[in-house]
Amino acid sequence: MSIRAGIVVTGTEVLSGRIADRNGPWVSQQLLELGVDIAHITVCGDRPDDLAAQLGFLTDQRVDLIVTTGGLGPTADDLTVAAVADFTGRALRSDDRIRAVIESVIRNWRKYDDDLPSAVVAAIDKQALIPLGAEAIPPTGTAPGVAVPATGGLPAILVLPGPPHEVQAMWPSAVATEAVEAAIAGRAAYDQHTIRAYGLSEADLAVSLRDAEGTVDGFGDLEITTCMRGGELEIVTRFETVAAQAYQTLEALLLERHGDRVYSTDGSSIGDVLAGLLGDRTIGTAESCTGGMVAAALTDRAGSSAYMLGGVVSYADEVKSGVLGVPPELIDELGAVSEPVAAAMADGARRVLGSDVAVSTTGIAGPGGARPGKPVGTVCFGVAVSGRETVTVTRHFPGDRDSVRRLATSAAMHLVAQALR
Amino acid sequence: MSIRAGIVVTGTEVLSGRIADRNGPWVSQQLLELGVDIAHITVCGDRPDDLAAQLGFLTDQRVDLIVTTGGLGPTADDLTVAAVADFTGRALRSDDRIRAVIESVIRNWRKYDDDLPSAVVAAIDKQALIPLGAEAIPPTGTAPGVAVPATGGLPAILVLPGPPHEVQAMWPSAVATEAVEAAIAGRAAYDQHTIRAYGLSEADLAVSLRDAEGTVDGFGDLEITTCMRGGELEIVTRFETVAAQAYQTLEALLLERHGDRVYSTDGSSIGDVLAGLLGDRTIGTAESCTGGMVAAALTDRAGSSAYMLGGVVSYADEVKSGVLGVPPELIDELGAVSEPVAAAMADGARRVLGSDVAVSTTGIAGPGGARPGKPVGTVCFGVAVSGRETVTVTRHFPGDRDSVRRLATSAAMHLVAQALR
Repeated sequence: MSIRAGIVVTGTEVLSGRIADRNGPWVSQQLLELGVDIAHITVCGDRPDDLAAQLGFLTDQRVDLIVTTGGLGPTADDLTVAAVADFTGRALRSDDRIRAVIESVIRNWRKYDDDLPSAVVAAIDKQALIPLGAEAIPPTGTAPGVAVPATGGLPAILVLPGPPHEVQAMWPSAVATEAVEAAIAGRAAYDQHTIRAYGLSEADLAVSLRDAEGTVDGFGDLEITTCMRGGELEIVTRFETVAAQAYQTLEALLLERHGDRVYSTDGSSIGDVLAGLLGDRTIGTAESCTGGMVAAALTDRAGSSAYMLGGVVSYADEVKSGVLGVPPELIDELGAVSEPVAAAMADGARRVLGSDVAVSTTGIAGPGGARPGKPVGTVCFGVAVSGRETVTVTRHFPGDRDSVRRLATSAAMHLVAQALR
Repeated sequence: MSIRAGIVVTGTEVLSGRIADRNGPWVSQQLLELGVDIAHITVCGDRPDDLAAQLGFLTDQRVDLIVTTGGLGPTADDLTVAAVADFTGRALRSDDRIRAVIESVIRNWRKYDDDLPSAVVAAIDKQALIPLGAEAIPPTGTAPGVAVPATGGLPAILVLPGPPHEVQAMWPSAVATEAVEAAIAGRAAYDQHTIRAYGLSEADLAVSLRDAEGTVDGFGDLEITTCMRGGELEIVTRFETVAAQAYQTLEALLLERHGDRVYSTDGSSIGDVLAGLLGDRTIGTAESCTGGMVAAALTDRAGSSAYMLGGVVSYADEVKSGVLGVPPELIDELGAVSEPVAAAMADGARRVLGSDVAVSTTGIAGPGGARPGKPVGTVCFGVAVSGRETVTVTRHFPGDRDSVRRLATSAAMHLVAQALR
């Protein structure tokens, strides 16, 4: 039996595009792992009518659970709890236990002497209000969560705070509430597998999937979604555990056709794969156009200090020469965006950082800087591995400055992986 | 008169949280700048029924314009155009002019000889289908956009592709279509101003806003939203141009109370502010826990090569000593996460990179690595400015590894700005 959920992300700052929402995607992934389908995600501003309209829409869509994030703060535009109470026809009551928790958190946090300022007291009073019959979830910041049980044709509603680290810290106790447990009981057991490829186009994959439709028994039981991001094609397949055989057949078919482009079949990221390929070797970076993004990607993973020594961001030519030892005449003759300079940067990084492996980037992220024969988006890479000839390659990436920098960062990671395979 | 729009972001990869949507926020900001209000953003998977339900919801909400992104690709799960045609009761016809454009784009892109593979022909045929009476918008990738005029109680619907750079390239011609122009005609003229502060809490701001409500004439005409991100508090106020005087009064009040925390009143980012404060001075970085994120932030801005020389990511202690010249005994005695080491890193960066200014980070991003008295989230910073004593500070940041790294990156930028003021 399929359980459907809707997610409501609140906040005018999200609706107006001034902040990228991190809660909707995270909550969605948690629910999918629990075996709950996601029907809709809606984003709404700090307007009670719009929030009520979205709760009504999701109820009409017969979801079993609504999860909201945001709007639990102390300010007047934080109105989620009041709106949910109103929507479910429940009065608000002050929860003394929760109120005490919030007050102690705030006292620890702001180091007040005995008397709290009235504005702070008002904020605590507001955040301690819980709809009648709902379960308060202890705050992981200052705002408690709320779990409202399903009643009278309304779905269960789980109200979570806005800050992503508060949402993530509160999640375990939130799914353990009676209201949520009841709402998602009886869900089917799902498996989800992720295949990741680099340099494989969606069009080429589409051809293989069309063929698989005819040759793979039970293909129809597989929910396949593909997503191109940073030059990486992610193929995620979700299925009830009974359809495991169909997935095995599909994976075999895709590996047979595109095995040279597939870098992971267990969901591991290029960072994970790189860590494995490095073994006991160390790595460093020399970056120009990516300006530190490759080093940031290599240090993103917990435990990366086991293999990542560091990097040199040689944005200015003087740093390319002065720190990495790139011959100035090489830059004068060929320009900083050239494969010989990329090679010298990678070799220099290995020497300066003392790493076994090094990768370099030098390119034109734009909007300015284009040269004859070197349009914006041109990026040269170098990969140096101890005991081997340093290899270089030039790529051209589409999009704006941000897009070029992201695609170049992804390409650098994959070029190293290719060199180490 | 207020014009309201709804945005529908399609794609199971977005709904399931495997990719962060970049189109909803971008389109939302463009519409707001045009003077159009955003009522709702909805995210839906590649299921025709859910898409139809969201189009119906936004129509019930009486929006004047719906903008969709995604679902225009060649694969079977790309079904936005068909769903919109169905929702508006329009048949699909092949647009020969657009079909020719798509084919030429693909021939340029994949370098086919005369005969295109049948799968590619099928893809082109699919992408050239346009609802009757709708205007096709030439592709900026391979997929054309579609503008469907408002008719019979239905809002105008603008159908855009999924890749952000295609959306952004197509936007000017999309808003110039008759359907969109008619839908947003008669909108009021709006102004929007942004104040940015660092180290100011939402609670303290809330107190000032409550007071402003009583003292600022026309406060009710101001649509104020606040947003805390990376330790920065963003205060965005949107108002019809007639309410400009009220905004001036509010801004004066906020500057009087929180001027020491406000770093920008014209919407400029900390990167912009830093560029201005540097003047003709150059800057460099020495990073450990942020692993290149500070350098990436400093090179994010077009033209940053005028002042950003580069940086050293000294993730390993050997690099702190070997490249930046941090005395090993200092690291042995006090640990790498200590203010003296942060100071030595910043001084080393200035010396090695030859910059006038340098900022350093060394901390514990977690999840491991905590030491007695140095919990996860502890980060030491150093700021070195030529001709001055190098300053250091220690901060503690909440959240997971990613959160600590983000907050530390933001703090590094602001510490430099404070030092240069």
